Amino acid sequence: MPVPAPVLYPPFNIVRLSHVEYHVRDLIKSRAFYVDTLGLEVTHEDDSHIYLRALEERGHHCIVLVQSDSSSVSVLGFKLYDEPDLEKAAEWFASKGLPVEWVDRPFMGKTLRTRDPWGIPLEFYVKMDRLAPIHQEYKLYRGVRPLRIDHFNMFSADVDGAVAFYSEMGFRTTEFTEDADSGKVWAAWMHRKGGVHDVAFTNGTGPRLHHTAFWVPTPMAIIDLLDLMATTGWVDSIERGPGRHGISNAFFLYIFDPDGNRIEIYCSDYQTVDPDLEPIKWDLKDPQRQTLWGAPAPRSWFEHGSTFEGASVEESALKAQPIIAP
Amino acid sequence: MPVPAPVLYPPFNIVRLSHVEYHVRDLIKSRAFYVDTLGLEVTHEDDSHIYLRALEERGHHCIVLVQSDSSSVSVLGFKLYDEPDLEKAAEWFASKGLPVEWVDRPFMGKTLRTRDPWGIPLEFYVKMDRLAPIHQEYKLYRGVRPLRIDHFNMFSADVDGAVAFYSEMGFRTTEFTEDADSGKVWAAWMHRKGGVHDVAFTNGTGPRLHHTAFWVPTPMAIIDLLDLMATTGWVDSIERGPGRHGISNAFFLYIFDPDGNRIEIYCSDYQTVDPDLEPIKWDLKDPQRQTLWGAPAPRSWFEHGSTFEGASVEESALKAQPIIAP
Amino acid sequence: MPVPAPVLYPPFNIVRLSHVEYHVRDLIKSRAFYVDTLGLEVTHEDDSHIYLRALEERGHHCIVLVQSDSSSVSVLGFKLYDEPDLEKAAEWFASKGLPVEWVDRPFMGKTLRTRDPWGIPLEFYVKMDRLAPIHQEYKLYRGVRPLRIDHFNMFSADVDGAVAFYSEMGFRTTEFTEDADSGKVWAAWMHRKGGVHDVAFTNGTGPRLHHTAFWVPTPMAIIDLLDLMATTGWVDSIERGPGRHGISNAFFLYIFDPDGNRIEIYCSDYQTVDPDLEPIKWDLKDPQRQTLWGAPAPRSWFEHGSTFEGASVEESALKAQPIIAP
Amino acid sequence: MPVPAPVLYPPFNIVRLSHVEYHVRDLIKSRAFYVDTLGLEVTHEDDSHIYLRALEERGHHCIVLVQSDSSSVSVLGFKLYDEPDLEKAAEWFASKGLPVEWVDRPFMGKTLRTRDPWGIPLEFYVKMDRLAPIHQEYKLYRGVRPLRIDHFNMFSADVDGAVAFYSEMGFRTTEFTEDADSGKVWAAWMHRKGGVHDVAFTNGTGPRLHHTAFWVPTPMAIIDLLDLMATTGWVDSIERGPGRHGISNAFFLYIFDPDGNRIEIYCSDYQTVDPDLEPIKWDLKDPQRQTLWGAPAPRSWFEHGSTFEGASVEESALKAQPIIAP
Repeated sequence: MPVPAPVLYPPFNIVRLSHVEYHVRDLIKSRAFYVDTLGLEVTHEDDSHIYLRALEERGHHCIVLVQSDSSSVSVLGFKLYDEPDLEKAAEWFASKGLPVEWVDRPFMGKTLRTRDPWGIPLEFYVKMDRLAPIHQEYKLYRGVRPLRIDHFNMFSADVDGAVAFYSEMGFRTTEFTEDADSGKVWAAWMHRKGGVHDVAFTNGTGPRLHHTAFWVPTPMAIIDLLDLMATTGWVDSIERGPGRHGISNAFFLYIFDPDGNRIEIYCSDYQTVDPDLEPIKWDLKDPQRQTLWGAPAPRSWFEHGSTFEGASVEESALKAQPIIAP
Repeated sequence: MPVPAPVLYPPFNIVRLSHVEYHVRDLIKSRAFYVDTLGLEVTHEDDSHIYLRALEERGHHCIVLVQSDSSSVSVLGFKLYDEPDLEKAAEWFASKGLPVEWVDRPFMGKTLRTRDPWGIPLEFYVKMDRLAPIHQEYKLYRGVRPLRIDHFNMFSADVDGAVAFYSEMGFRTTEFTEDADSGKVWAAWMHRKGGVHDVAFTNGTGPRLHHTAFWVPTPMAIIDLLDLMATTGWVDSIERGPGRHGISNAFFLYIFDPDGNRIEIYCSDYQTVDPDLEPIKWDLKDPQRQTLWGAPAPRSWFEHGSTFEGASVEESALKAQPIIAP
Repeated sequence: MPVPAPVLYPPFNIVRLSHVEYHVRDLIKSRAFYVDTLGLEVTHEDDSHIYLRALEERGHHCIVLVQSDSSSVSVLGFKLYDEPDLEKAAEWFASKGLPVEWVDRPFMGKTLRTRDPWGIPLEFYVKMDRLAPIHQEYKLYRGVRPLRIDHFNMFSADVDGAVAFYSEMGFRTTEFTEDADSGKVWAAWMHRKGGVHDVAFTNGTGPRLHHTAFWVPTPMAIIDLLDLMATTGWVDSIERGPGRHGISNAFFLYIFDPDGNRIEIYCSDYQTVDPDLEPIKWDLKDPQRQTLWGAPAPRSWFEHGSTFEGASVEESALKAQPIIAP
Repeated sequence: MPVPAPVLYPPFNIVRLSHVEYHVRDLIKSRAFYVDTLGLEVTHEDDSHIYLRALEERGHHCIVLVQSDSSSVSVLGFKLYDEPDLEKAAEWFASKGLPVEWVDRPFMGKTLRTRDPWGIPLEFYVKMDRLAPIHQEYKLYRGVRPLRIDHFNMFSADVDGAVAFYSEMGFRTTEFTEDADSGKVWAAWMHRKGGVHDVAFTNGTGPRLHHTAFWVPTPMAIIDLLDLMATTGWVDSIERGPGRHGISNAFFLYIFDPDGNRIEIYCSDYQTVDPDLEPIKWDLKDPQRQTLWGAPAPRSWFEHGSTFEGASVEESALKAQPIIAP
């Protein structure tokens, strides 16, 4: 099997993905997208920062928007299980020759900042400020009713390498696409929290963030968002969907925020908590892989991504061609 | 206004579209599509014919499938209000120099057969065998849960002419697309029964049947059908959608039956019973006209249609170009 | 059959129910209910009046709220087909010995005001101010996303009489409940516009308005409203539901406005345009009549209603007992 | 706080609830309920046993039905993380003075059988036969489309005791109801797998199984099941709902199988993986606790339960009264 077996006793315990920080060129426009259109809740804002949470979350934020001169992704955040995991994580990354520092992050406790071998900036924490539940304040349910952050998907120029590295960290592969010709992994979906993925890697020029995804209650929420976006000036921000994924079986939609960061709206995948869950393998040539209903993704889906601050990108050596919409 | 005002006192009273008869090349394959996949109910079948009804219908059939050597549409049927309307209809068509004959149709009472000026075969009746209601036999709800036949859409080489003719018959225009350059009507949607349309005409080589549509309970039914078709061998029969129409505001999906007849699955349009309902005009260049969410229709949607028996087609003189997906 | 056959050529042509005017004790509270909670749109308001329309409607209003000392229903409005129908209606009501007057109604053209034999105040018009469509302004879709007014249901002390009278007017019975013991009609549902009903009569102390109903896109809209009402202080306004009706097969919810007027939220009934549609008969003792899923209605549902201005009520002689929730 | 803090390093690692075995009096009737009506898939059957799995599960079974002379629940099964957890579990239960034995279970590997201090029969395993995924075989989606087993809820005469015991095992409390008068816990919801609960305890005569729950894709699936049950002879099996829970915020329905075992259909709760998730406390007197929409549960909901084989029941000393529907 081209994907590593699950590591049952990882070096430190990652609970789940937690948050992403985007540097954006126009905070007001980004607010109109994330708050007024998607329906995320503002937990803190000032002239240069907006902190957002989704409707069932109790951690202070899942998105941070920072006013900047240019667009980039400054960090992907993950929550750790317990205090000792912070030191264990620091030791582990250091043992890999990766940079490790302790940073002060607003609304968060002790936080480890590092990078994966390809330069993706990561931060790990145990404590984040907790907020009162709002999941039953139904008057706040607007837009696409985003309930929680679900996953990150990254372009990677070395998916096999990324899968090996993140597997060591304890992420377990649930599904993957194999390029039959080369025998290499084209893409892989890996989880900690019990859904299809917390992180995924897709072959391409990388590392770049392919998308951040939010979980919503039902496919109807996605239809509502499309109707809203189409009639409030956001029709050009709709990239691909709606549809049913082959991989993950989730119902999806891909849209762009004002900085061109891709956001996925996602629901109805499946439970993956079993340690002996067998990864599902797809062939790169399978036209139902990405969209069970057949429609291929547009070229932008394979090419457009968001740069990580401080991470230089390289082209992938894996040149296999997926099916691309004309 | 390029569309005629509604005729409040038409020469005879058409209640609604009623049924379509398809000549099909493989009755077994067609049965697998209409019955096993879409979920229509068989009301009568023998070696050469299958009669189908939808789940809330009480008339004997909305679709007739006839085993043939080639694919065609043999007639579009409409229900009239009361017995005197039959004679009035015969007189009216005769007065237009159109062929008129009385025909024996299985499961139907006295039936008038004729053609519109472009050759579309039409039949009109008052009585069709009535069946017991099954709309609460929920164990019969399968596939896309089709509730009733909703409309016919025809390619026409002379949309302005078709709109004028069907307006005289009492069909009222609810929405239309204007080609601003020529000032001609590119397409029009016209009703009798109180929804957005019973019939529609779309500029193109015609007359040909563009599609027959069925009304379903909710957009979720359409998602269910896509999931089912995609995993039971029908993925190549999916043409366009799902999506929200600009015109009609309905949620839609277009699929092909085994003979290449286009079927639309449709829900959530709006009530049009007011005689003073103002037709909504769209511009041919408006990218949100067909799909509110922006995605243009594929080339096949503008070109592929079903021939009517005995009706020769001609190209339209109206050469304006809509936006077509690459 | 205990219900009259449909009158195919009524004395004047009623298109559909149109609007209801409620006299309310606290306009601000009513606004909070109808606008902020249900999601109706304000088309005109001043210190003493609020005019509301639903999201797919183009007529100026479907509800009028009038600040008053006490709660009552001042009139039920119906739209007529064409100008000559006004005079025909006036003649018909006069021929029945019923009061007839022409009234000036804001935002409406020539309007006939009258009463049915039991005192229900009715008004008929052809022209009402028309507004631009808003059915695709999705940012306006809030609350329960009410699309259009659907029907009135009245308590009647003489249902057989009411059915006969309204049948003469052209309303056609789609479903009715028979009290097997007395052979009398307990309740009946009657339409003009092609759904299960525009008006209905239910045995009880009358005449009183039992409820006004709104059509919404899907059952999910009803679930959303319940979640919203339950968490914004309106939980005590929820009377019965959600559920699936036996009669009509519609998915429903019953709630009370601040004056105790019952409002039904309703979707997914069926098309009734066929003149030969056979009325469905239910037995009063059938426990699945009101709720297909079995749960009986609460006592309030059989007893609580809204008084019509100027119409004195009487108890029904028909004392049969439906099943009532304990 | 009346509920214990989460135990971050439990004595052995329980992944999730796994399966329940019901002894039933009529296997054919039970099959008609679980397979034909709910839509569970048969993985093995013979004259005396039926093994069932839900649509996204890959373990061999989540329900075992065994033909018997009387109705009872013979065991609740839980999946453990890794082989060493089996011995650790055996030691832990033995250290509590509880019975421990190794049993041969069809389609399962090494299995530990024991009882909790109140007599609830439990079994723990690491390996169960694995089956090919069927979650994308949409032609198998029938009934309520049950995706996976979600939780067990037990009547307990000593909820505080049960919560303490199961907390030691690693179950974390997400929500609980406090009886303000006594300061005791009336009910508690506790999880391993990241949703609101794997197990719950409700004050009452116990131990008895209150219900087993299945997760479904959306509330529409629950409406579909109600429509199906109501029209295929199962209307008397509908106990309570549909509705939105206060506790858990899930959309629910409660029904009875032919043996009177209560089954809950459940969806849309929330993610609970954070170790620092604060339990939500409800007051027993809160009318929105059980149904956010206000409707109290019927008496049967507080009284009717399924006996565990070999576990004698006792009445609870905690006599507080919740609100009960008349």
